[in-house]
Order: sequence, then structure tokens, then C-alpha cells
Amino acid sequence: MRVLARDIAEIAGSDPGAGVELSGWVHRIRDMGGITFVVLRDRSGVVQLVCNEKPVDASGAALTLESVITVKGKAAPNAKAPGGAEVQAESIECLSRAAPDLPFQVNGDVSRMGIETILDNRLLSVRNPKIRAIFKVQAVVIEAFSSYLRSKDFTEIKTSKLVSGGTEGGTELFEVDYFDRKICLAQSPQFYKEAMVASGMERVFEIAPAYRAEKHDTPRHLNEYVSLDVEMGFIESEKDLIELERGLLAHIFEETARKNAADLALWNAAVPAPETLEEAPVIGYEDAVKLASDMSAKAGGGRIFEINPEAERFLCEWSAAAHGSDLVFVNEFPRRHRPFYTFPSDANRTMSFDALFRGLEITTGGRRLHRYDTFVEALPRFGLKLENMQNYANLLQSGCPPHGGFAIGCERLTARILGLANVKEASLFPRDRRRVEP
Amino acid sequence: MRVLARDIAEIAGSDPGAGVELSGWVHRIRDMGGITFVVLRDRSGVVQLVCNEKPVDASGAALTLESVITVKGKAAPNAKAPGGAEVQAESIECLSRAAPDLPFQVNGDVSRMGIETILDNRLLSVRNPKIRAIFKVQAVVIEAFSSYLRSKDFTEIKTSKLVSGGTEGGTELFEVDYFDRKICLAQSPQFYKEAMVASGMERVFEIAPAYRAEKHDTPRHLNEYVSLDVEMGFIESEKDLIELERGLLAHIFEETARKNAADLALWNAAVPAPETLEEAPVIGYEDAVKLASDMSAKAGGGRIFEINPEAERFLCEWSAAAHGSDLVFVNEFPRRHRPFYTFPSDANRTMSFDALFRGLEITTGGRRLHRYDTFVEALPRFGLKLENMQNYANLLQSGCPPHGGFAIGCERLTARILGLANVKEASLFPRDRRRVEP
Repeated sequence: MRVLARDIAEIAGSDPGAGVELSGWVHRIRDMGGITFVVLRDRSGVVQLVCNEKPVDASGAALTLESVITVKGKAAPNAKAPGGAEVQAESIECLSRAAPDLPFQVNGDVSRMGIETILDNRLLSVRNPKIRAIFKVQAVVIEAFSSYLRSKDFTEIKTSKLVSGGTEGGTELFEVDYFDRKICLAQSPQFYKEAMVASGMERVFEIAPAYRAEKHDTPRHLNEYVSLDVEMGFIESEKDLIELERGLLAHIFEETARKNAADLALWNAAVPAPETLEEAPVIGYEDAVKLASDMSAKAGGGRIFEINPEAERFLCEWSAAAHGSDLVFVNEFPRRHRPFYTFPSDANRTMSFDALFRGLEITTGGRRLHRYDTFVEALPRFGLKLENMQNYANLLQSGCPPHGGFAIGCERLTARILGLANVKEASLFPRDRRRVEP
Repeated sequence: MRVLARDIAEIAGSDPGAGVELSGWVHRIRDMGGITFVVLRDRSGVVQLVCNEKPVDASGAALTLESVITVKGKAAPNAKAPGGAEVQAESIECLSRAAPDLPFQVNGDVSRMGIETILDNRLLSVRNPKIRAIFKVQAVVIEAFSSYLRSKDFTEIKTSKLVSGGTEGGTELFEVDYFDRKICLAQSPQFYKEAMVASGMERVFEIAPAYRAEKHDTPRHLNEYVSLDVEMGFIESEKDLIELERGLLAHIFEETARKNAADLALWNAAVPAPETLEEAPVIGYEDAVKLASDMSAKAGGGRIFEINPEAERFLCEWSAAAHGSDLVFVNEFPRRHRPFYTFPSDANRTMSFDALFRGLEITTGGRRLHRYDTFVEALPRFGLKLENMQNYANLLQSGCPPHGGFAIGCERLTARILGLANVKEASLFPRDRRRVEP
């Protein structure tokens, strides 16, 4: 009966010398002459094996790093061993031998490695405990996102990623050869989530890939990312959505703190205390631009004319200093900066918002148009033609409640929780202009 | 403060005449001369409104079906009203007017409508409570799939759907124009989930779209479907996977029974009792073919030579009669019927299985190759060349534990739970050769 690395300390404490069987990867080998220390790594962590004979594989060759083994032995307390216990190995069986010349040092210090090295060797780099921790955090982010929304009566939906056109306009779409025609990969489930609100589900969420054929390569962008989408009916303004996101992020952070303590520690990271999210300020677009511009001037920089990446950093700096919050909401974006379906609050401004977290925009959202007459009126302003928007027209002519929603970039949120410099580090198999492998 | 349709009976019972406010869609209108009955539908269900004046929209025109309204009134018990209570309407505000000539009758009897009508009018048909129930069941299937696997120490992963080639061979792939090259939409996360087992996560699951460019149009197939994928390390044979799936399906059915009682009732459907899953037989491929063939002969049909859709129906019939189970596992598939990465149990057979549920294959799975030498040996048998399989080669040369997994087709499982004739009915926005809208 297999036990896990994390169980050894307890077994050794309660029943020293108990027989145990473990399976996992050879994380480290230290040959001390008479004895060899092998660090075994499994899904739960690592444990030290003490081998009186040189460990070998099935062919009798020396055991290699990253080989998969099953070891039988006795659990023993040892204050000097990591975790306070070790296993006195009696037999080691090699289940799968790793090549001795792997191109990446799994047990190395990844903080000294460049991102290209890490991503080029993804099958190996994700074995590094610090890198694996990124994806353990991400799994909890996804779980907490879902569980919070379910508790608020939201229904999970799965919508098609193959669409005949983009809701954000025709650019930046990847084309797919679909039998005898060309269709596109969805940039977002925008239309579908609105349709499902209007279907009577009222409150929906979706967790799915989204695609942007953007050519630029920045630490903020992925061509394929996991979008955490939310849409709800019967709201009055974007402020309802901001309140929802406050509670949602608080729950995500609480769950991460509770379930990922060890993962956060590997990155020397901490999530914001939930109560600080209540303090997160909401600042109007014009005020936000002015504030960022003033901060830039004070720091000896140039003027800032819009909410760009530099402004996002200044605004988060301000929020942290003035409100003790890593999060800040910017609302009232100008109509020209938002898609046609955004609900206007006056002639020039919209009921929309961004959430900025630790210097990075992690969410865009807002209230949407829900009436056919205002939709028809808005289209020319955006250079759109009604005849090309038949699905939207149908939706808004079928009885559509006031509604709105937002999307959180899963990789961006994960990256900012852990302090990763590049959002690609938070994608298992990131895609950019150059990278489609592994 | 808005209340929901489902709350009215309780409010009317405990505080008759209490003021209430509801919002939702106009599901039905019955003009009785002096008074008008309006059935209001919201995410929780329906409730009857009693209006002393003819309800109108903002322009003074008669209220249309499917318009979105907010009503204020008094909750009142009425034994004759559906649910035992109704609302005496005092004011009705129309938030969004639906066109009077909608192309689909939302409050109609969908069992009398063809699937083409239902799918062509998806934005409206999904408003029908019986159709919406399909997706409420599906949401619980997804939630229960995740929660069971998490309870068994599985980690949720999200992997790329943009791949340079297929793991099942080169056919049936949709091509994507990816900047200046052609890549493909993933048929399954097969390689990635194996890689993540080998990463040390050991136990992973993924919920994501999968793509098959199959030209045929059958009630069993979708060109885009939601794949519920599972992969785990340190298994001995497919029997470990079968045991996992037994427990997983039992949990899914328990949760569905608990949370979707009303949805199941609309379809006159019931999930199998969890204990019957323990009785689900495991039958070897050769025996299964013989059994199905004998049953076919007895029913006056032709001989059966492989596990085809007809055989799947016979085997489920047998399992129900002989074992009291709607589920049956077929294992020991011949090597020629399985992908190259399937682990052989002898010269001709494999450690693989299908799960058949109520007449339909819902799962394919098996143990996979985990050693480089057996992989190299297997390739020529499948006409594959090592130089085209570099990612797999790297994976198996890096220390890969014995492992295996399976995938459940989410739409297929949903369809079989509810007894839907066509799997497309269980996809919100299904894609087939002809259909890419809405």
C-alpha cells in the first residue's frame, strides 16, 4: 500500500521503523561514499531516502535523476532530515528510467533561469516544485471562482469557441478551416453569456479558453488564455458588478490562503487580506488619468493621457498607499474606449469598469445594452451595420433584461497573486506568435 | 427588493398580502375579459400574476410574450394557482419589449418540435423550461465531476487547444491560421494530461472543448464537444480506472438526483441508483462482441463483428437485465482498435476500456505506454515515425510513471441521463458541418 511523502513524518513519529512503500521521482541524489541519499518527490512533496547500496535501475546502471521509482523501507525519525523524518530504503524498483542528459535541471533554482528556458523545457520545468506551485494556485483560483458564483445562484455554461465573427469587431481573430468555409476562434463568450442571461438563467459563468490574434509579444499578453467570465441580469449599473467582484476576489484569496499556503511560501507571496478588498477604491476614468499623470510628473515622467500599463501601476501604487488595498476599480470609461455593446451613462461615458490588481488590469466589465432601440442607435457610432449584427439584434428583440458582466484573466490573476513577471509563466502551455510547442 | 418566483408560496403562506417585487419574462398571457393572468418566469421558476388592468408596455401597447417586466404587487395564497400562490399585480414596468412575432413559441410543448427548429432558434428555445433543464443538469454534472476528483487529490489543469498536430493521427483535425503557419485544434488533451501526470501532479483532470473534424452527422456526434478528462499515475491496469469511474459516476448521479429533481421530472428521467453502479459488469471485448452478436441473432438481426452503436445498445440491454445496471464496461480492446499509446496486455489486446451507459458509449479510456522502449517498439505497428513524435519521446525519456485515464463526453452523459435522442440537444450552441450559428 503506497503512502505519500507528506505522510512519512507522522508515520515515523507514531510508529518508528514501520514498513512503508512510496513511489515518485528521483529529485536529488547525494552519494556520500558508504551511503547514498535520494530525495524522492511525489505529488505531496519530497522525502529523503537513505540507501546503503548505490541505487540502480533495472539494467543495473546507476539511477538517474527524474527516473520514477518505487521504494520499500522503514520510516524513521531524523531531526536533521527535511521534514524531520526519512526512509531507510530496503529495495528500490525503477519503473521508468529518465535519460541521464535531460536538457533542464528540475531540482535547480528557477529564479536564476530565463523564461525562454523555462517554457522551451515545459515538460521538465513544470516538475520543479516552485513552478508546479503556480498551477496548484491556479487550480484553487478556478475552484474558488466557481464555488463562490454557485453560492450566488450562478449557473456554469459551456459555449462554442467556433464563431462566424467577432463581437468586438473583425480584427485580431484566428481563422479556422471549418469544412468548406472559414470561421473564427471566439475572442470571448460575450454574446453567448449575454444570450444565456436572457435565456432566463439570469446569472451565468463560464471558464474557457479565449483567443486573441494579437501580434505583439508582451509580459501581459497571451494569444490563448483562460477567461473567467461572469454575466448577470437585473443590475442597475457597473457598481453592482464591482460589488460582486469584490466578494468574488475576497473568496478566491481566502481559499488560496487556506489551500495554497506552501505554494505561496515558495514564491514568498501573500494574498491580500479579504477585508482590504472592501477598501478598494472606485475611481472615475478622468480622475484616474489625472491622478496617474500627476504621479508620473512627480516621479519625473511624462504626462499620461489614458489608462495604459504605466497608469495601471501608478493607480495601484496610489490605492495601496491611500487605501491599503492592492485592488482598485476604474469606472466611467469613455464610450470611444469601449465596445459598442457597452451601456452609456451619458453622452460620452459608460457604465463600465476595469479592475487593476497589483499594477495590472485583471478585469474588464460593464453593463451592456439591453434594448433594441439603443442598440440600433449605437451601431453607426462604432461603424457597425445592423445587417451584420443579426444575432445581437435577435437577442435584443426577444426580451432582454438589464444586465452586465465581466471577465477575469485567469493567468493574469494567478501571476499577480504570486508576483510572476510574465503572464506566460502562469500558462501551462502558453501560445504566442512563435510558440506552439510543446 | 426583488424576490423570486419560488419564494411567493412561502411569503403568501406566512404573510398573506405582503408587498413583493418580481422581475422576469412574460411566459404566458390569458385575457379573461375583466382580468388578465400573466405567468412570470424567472431563473427560479414561474408564478402567476393577476392583473385587473390589461398589462401594457412603456408605449402603451399590449404586453408581448417574452418581454421583461418588473411587477409590484401583493402575494396571495390561491389553491388553484400553480404552486398554491399568486401575485395581485399593482404595477407592471416593461424593461425590455419582445417583438410580437417571435419565430419560436417559448411556452410551447418542445416534445412536438423537431431538433432543427429547436437548434435554429436556440436563443429562444433555451428559454423553454424543459430545455433549460438540460443545461441545469449539465452544470451539476460538471460540478460533481470536479468535486469528486478534487476529493481524490486530483488537480484541475487547463491546457492549450492549439496544437501542431494530433495525437490520434493526422486525420479529422480542424486547421487554424496561426500567424504565418497552420496549426490544429486539439482533438483531446491526451498528450498534455499525460505530461501533467508525469510532471508530478500525478492526478489531473481537465474540462475543456475538444474538436473532431468528422464529416458525418449522427445523433451521437458533435464537431465540438466538452470533454471531461481524467488522467492518473501509478495505476496497474485499466481496472483501476474502471473503479475510479464507478465512484465518479455514482457521485455525479447522486448530485444530479439531489440538485436537479425538478429538471429530471420535466424529462420524466431518473438517474441510476448509486449502488447499481457497483453491479455494473466488466466484459472483455471478444465476449462482448459474441454476446451482442447472439442477441442480435435472437432478435432476428445480422451478426455483429465489433462494438458498434448497435452492439452498445445490446450490451446495455444485457447489463440492465442480467445485472440491474444501466452501465457496462467493455475492456481488453484489440490493439488495432486503439491508439498507439495504449498499453498492451498481450500481443493483441490492450489494457483499455469503454463505458457504455443506456445504450451509448460515454467513455473511452485505458492505461498508456509509459516506457520509452515499448513506445519505440509500438510506433511502426501504427505506421508512425519516431521523428514525428518528439514530444512523446521526450515525455517518455524523462521518467514517466505507469498511468492511464479516460474521458467522458459531457454532452453524451447529459443526453443519456435525460433520455435525449440527439447529443446536439445537450450542447448549448452545437457545431456540425452545417451549423455555426447562432
